[in-house]
Amino acid sequence: MKIAVDGMGGDYAPEEIVKGTVSAAREYGVEIALVGPAETMTGELAKHDCSGVEIEVINASQYLVEGEPPAYALREKRDASIMVATKLVREKKADAVVSAGPTGGVVAAALYVLGTVEGISRPVVGGPFLGFAPNTICMDMGSNVDCQPHQLLDFAIVGTVFARKMLNIQNPTVALLSVGAEEGKGNEQVKESYPLFQKAGLNFIGNVEGYDLPAGRANVIICDGFVGNIMVKFCESLGKTVARWLEERLNGKLPEGDVKEITNGLILATNAADAMGGGPLWAVNGVACVSHGRSKAEEIAKTIGQAKLAVERDLIGAMKVELAAARDKLKETGSQ
Amino acid sequence: MKIAVDGMGGDYAPEEIVKGTVSAAREYGVEIALVGPAETMTGELAKHDCSGVEIEVINASQYLVEGEPPAYALREKRDASIMVATKLVREKKADAVVSAGPTGGVVAAALYVLGTVEGISRPVVGGPFLGFAPNTICMDMGSNVDCQPHQLLDFAIVGTVFARKMLNIQNPTVALLSVGAEEGKGNEQVKESYPLFQKAGLNFIGNVEGYDLPAGRANVIICDGFVGNIMVKFCESLGKTVARWLEERLNGKLPEGDVKEITNGLILATNAADAMGGGPLWAVNGVACVSHGRSKAEEIAKTIGQAKLAVERDLIGAMKVELAAARDKLKETGSQ
Repeated sequence: MKIAVDGMGGDYAPEEIVKGTVSAAREYGVEIALVGPAETMTGELAKHDCSGVEIEVINASQYLVEGEPPAYALREKRDASIMVATKLVREKKADAVVSAGPTGGVVAAALYVLGTVEGISRPVVGGPFLGFAPNTICMDMGSNVDCQPHQLLDFAIVGTVFARKMLNIQNPTVALLSVGAEEGKGNEQVKESYPLFQKAGLNFIGNVEGYDLPAGRANVIICDGFVGNIMVKFCESLGKTVARWLEERLNGKLPEGDVKEITNGLILATNAADAMGGGPLWAVNGVACVSHGRSKAEEIAKTIGQAKLAVERDLIGAMKVELAAARDKLKETGSQ
Repeated sequence: MKIAVDGMGGDYAPEEIVKGTVSAAREYGVEIALVGPAETMTGELAKHDCSGVEIEVINASQYLVEGEPPAYALREKRDASIMVATKLVREKKADAVVSAGPTGGVVAAALYVLGTVEGISRPVVGGPFLGFAPNTICMDMGSNVDCQPHQLLDFAIVGTVFARKMLNIQNPTVALLSVGAEEGKGNEQVKESYPLFQKAGLNFIGNVEGYDLPAGRANVIICDGFVGNIMVKFCESLGKTVARWLEERLNGKLPEGDVKEITNGLILATNAADAMGGGPLWAVNGVACVSHGRSKAEEIAKTIGQAKLAVERDLIGAMKVELAAARDKLKETGSQ
């Protein structure tokens, strides 16, 4: 298996990206196509022990920088590292692409070069968001802010594949995020989605509330990207705020190491996306994984591990099959 | 000043309600109209020292129970304590009404008996929601799940009055809750609301994100009741989850009292609505305050204190003036 890595993406590129790539190549036993200015890449590789790992440098003369409008960047920088790396996947020279950003550029390159799977117009962002509920994922987390019921249903199907393939949950429960558990509670979007979810062959358990999120009441929790983005960012920020608050209260009362263990544990639990390193862009027609912009070597390595898993478990194939099956099911019941 | 108290509302009625009412009468120096079955109310009052406080019992033969559809309850139970208590406000025999629920019944009674202020069709629920950001309120928290931009603007005006009158902030900053700080970031609802907010004479500072909530980036944060309800319930639940997680880690390492102080402090900070006891139903044409269903004496007393404050500071009058002024301003600029 070969993973294309954007050597110039992320706040700590190229140093930390190359470092993480070398360690991932060894740890996961994957071949790497390291994409970026050849001289820079070779120079960075020289800093590490690369014996026994297969890393090929692919030259790309340009790269994206944070703040550029993605559409502009892609038009002006045809030889940007993320473009070259993503094209390797389209040309079947790599099985997956990994980049630490800028996210907008990675999404745009994935859309432009790989496209989305049939029937879904934009990539979907989602995954576990809370360490207290490790078997619960949320979709969408911000990619699609205005959604029709059929889009929420697509997220639910994609989420079901995620939970099955990446979290090893055989028959994941699915719920709509709403303001009350009873059918009929919610905004128009949720009320219209509810019957659609019932008929699509999902393991749909109804609505869950904000109150149910930390308890992981369902494996796959569905909301539009507006709600999901606000919820996940609030969670991350609240975790960090509470950690600082705790630090003030515990300092001097507990050994420094214990305080650090508790506050770090809390930050990790409330910043689960950071903790995972990164994950696939869902609904893209190929495996494209985004790592946080502030990723260091360890996070990049983890994201490469996620990409390997996604390829091994044939996420894209499974997603297409499930989407088609759900649509057939809805046609049978006359809902679509 | 006289406050009408629904003696039969809430999980711990009548015992805790009457107990809290007696202590509030003494603490805040307000007259009370205690509404409920006369014999029950008199019996409960007899358990307390009522010397020097003015509490009049007003008979109501019925009361609402949790789970009844509010519309049904109001139709079938004309003599329900919440109806009788709310009518005292309409008839100017009381200045405010306080009840611990069921919330749906209190809202329905307020709507039916008092009505809403001109131009707002439903009550608005909001207030401080996070102890870490005591000068930040969120509106709406669940009363209006599908909102048009002009409704969000109404919430912003109501919230501005809240912050000014109840939190003593002279010129409260107002923000829209969205997925990014820049203008143009957000769903259709936010994008359409943004120019309206700019023209209404508010101290509008733009969008804030989920990430900004704990930092209290604005005094008045506006969202529809779907987002607000999910966010506030998630906050409450996450706080309790983290408190339990902390308890496990701190037990045995810190004295029991210190552990309790920290976990209780965290729960209080993340369950600010509980901590306040309760607050006014906004946009109702009269002061109607709801306390949580699980309120005990202390919370009921606090809610009566909130009601007193709302009357003293003429919330309803201020709200009407501000709403009219904002509408005039929008007319001038041709936006409405």
